[in-house]
Amino acid sequence: MSLYPSLEDMKVDQMGKVQAQMVNEAIRASQQAQALPASAPPTHDPYAPPPYPLHPPQTQTQPKSGLELLYPALDEYMGLEFTQDIIAANMPEYLPVAQRPPGTMGVAVGASSVMPSGVVAPISGSSPGLLRGQVTNAIREVTLCKDGDGKVGMRVKAINKGVFVCLVKKNSPAAMAGLRFGDQVLQVNGQTVASYSMEKVHDMLRKSPPNGIQLAVRDRPFERAVTLHKDSTGHIGFQFRDGEITALVKDSSAARNGLLTDHHLLEVNGQNVVGLKDKDISALISECGQVVTVTVMPTFVYKHMMKHMASSLVKFMDHSIPDL
Amino acid sequence: MSLYPSLEDMKVDQMGKVQAQMVNEAIRASQQAQALPASAPPTHDPYAPPPYPLHPPQTQTQPKSGLELLYPALDEYMGLEFTQDIIAANMPEYLPVAQRPPGTMGVAVGASSVMPSGVVAPISGSSPGLLRGQVTNAIREVTLCKDGDGKVGMRVKAINKGVFVCLVKKNSPAAMAGLRFGDQVLQVNGQTVASYSMEKVHDMLRKSPPNGIQLAVRDRPFERAVTLHKDSTGHIGFQFRDGEITALVKDSSAARNGLLTDHHLLEVNGQNVVGLKDKDISALISECGQVVTVTVMPTFVYKHMMKHMASSLVKFMDHSIPDL
Repeated sequence: MSLYPSLEDMKVDQMGKVQAQMVNEAIRASQQAQALPASAPPTHDPYAPPPYPLHPPQTQTQPKSGLELLYPALDEYMGLEFTQDIIAANMPEYLPVAQRPPGTMGVAVGASSVMPSGVVAPISGSSPGLLRGQVTNAIREVTLCKDGDGKVGMRVKAINKGVFVCLVKKNSPAAMAGLRFGDQVLQVNGQTVASYSMEKVHDMLRKSPPNGIQLAVRDRPFERAVTLHKDSTGHIGFQFRDGEITALVKDSSAARNGLLTDHHLLEVNGQNVVGLKDKDISALISECGQVVTVTVMPTFVYKHMMKHMASSLVKFMDHSIPDL
Repeated sequence: MSLYPSLEDMKVDQMGKVQAQMVNEAIRASQQAQALPASAPPTHDPYAPPPYPLHPPQTQTQPKSGLELLYPALDEYMGLEFTQDIIAANMPEYLPVAQRPPGTMGVAVGASSVMPSGVVAPISGSSPGLLRGQVTNAIREVTLCKDGDGKVGMRVKAINKGVFVCLVKKNSPAAMAGLRFGDQVLQVNGQTVASYSMEKVHDMLRKSPPNGIQLAVRDRPFERAVTLHKDSTGHIGFQFRDGEITALVKDSSAARNGLLTDHHLLEVNGQNVVGLKDKDISALISECGQVVTVTVMPTFVYKHMMKHMASSLVKFMDHSIPDL
């Protein structure tokens, strides 16, 4: 089973597979019409695979090794076995790229079309925003220092016994360390901060040494990224007011890909847009290429995170483009 | 930068790296004490790398190829370049496994310790629950049929203009196709269902042909998975009532890994527990091994999804263990 970042990627991948199959059948039919010698090995049929690996080999091999241990071979039951040889003879387009017969048509394989997570992305794979906006929910370690004023440049908020980053100041040590709005702080200098108040964590950061402040951080638990494709008029298909998604356009990419209302726009191609004016966000989106990845968060969580935050603070928010 | 599924994985990985470094330094010091010939190539120092790849090669190579295009070599500015040769001579523990010098200590490399997404998991990597519970938010295609009663065995709920699976009946076609509680339905037979009501989608499914019903599905947008480790007494460290997480135990794995209250438990190691009694969920958790991956959803979304659902329906909920 293939996974895709957007519905458009899925449709393109499916069309590619069908095309490869049709070309194969046409070539076979023409070869039979020309009455080629039957001894010619059928595995060397030229065919046109789509210009990206059809099945990510990582995800395919891992479950198989587990299943092979659990179940006996299919051959014993039905006299049919999907070995590499049988697949090569009958459906070469399903072979991993490296194992395809050497006589096949040479097609450039774009490494970027299969994402690190095994997601197949024939059209959005080359978009840097897809990688920049990816929400992994995984844990990483971040090392902070203090700036000349003795500040790390971040503020946190306590939600549901967790501590969340609600402000990263531009050009601050926190911004340079790659902290983002919505990141969950798990530990400060090895001390677990679960159920701590905002004030207590701010106090811990204040009392930290000027260098080597270690944070354990979980990547944005309340957020997720949605990849959209512009239509021929350059629209991705949703309306927003004060950063909140209020309506979807019928038959747009936003509707197809399941963007939801009552969510706040936090990032465009991984770039933080919290605190930006709506027209600045629109300008950012129109400057993007054909593929736009937006990161969203339910509005009720967003409102909680921004509650009581002075607008004088919001205007210092970091809006830089994250490193890949 | 390495990513980890749990804080425990991060600590073990960091300890492994420090150990490898210390062993290297000790070996170098002893070699200098023995006054080895200076011509011996320093790259062949034996050392003890941790038994898993230190840096997932996928994530390391992909950004580099982009950066090499953008920036000139570091050598021109500072006379220092992190080429493979210099890394091999000075810090062999940072080399990709395949490129380590042949004279190094042979250590088994567990493929399972680096997850498909490039996440490093020295202790939870071998847990099948980590893979089963993984929430990708990606899009996949699902083909359904109807059972003998003409039913596909699922119910949906409309939330924020999206359509979500709120019931998968056990042994139904929907369960066998791998649909899960919380999956978002994007299309039914190619028709986008954004902003459709629950009744309209149920009607579309009813009027579908008995075979080949195509759904485009986004993997559980409101959910996320948290991987926890049992302590010596077998506890992972949270209390729950009616499936809702109500409190965290201080200094437990749940607190360390940032589990949140006001969230509902939906899956344990990928197995659906919605509608199960608390004591049955506790029994499931205690039957798990050392590593437990729980899938959670904010309570306000959960309550909306379960609103007006008859308890006579809930008891038909699918609780099977998903395929890997």
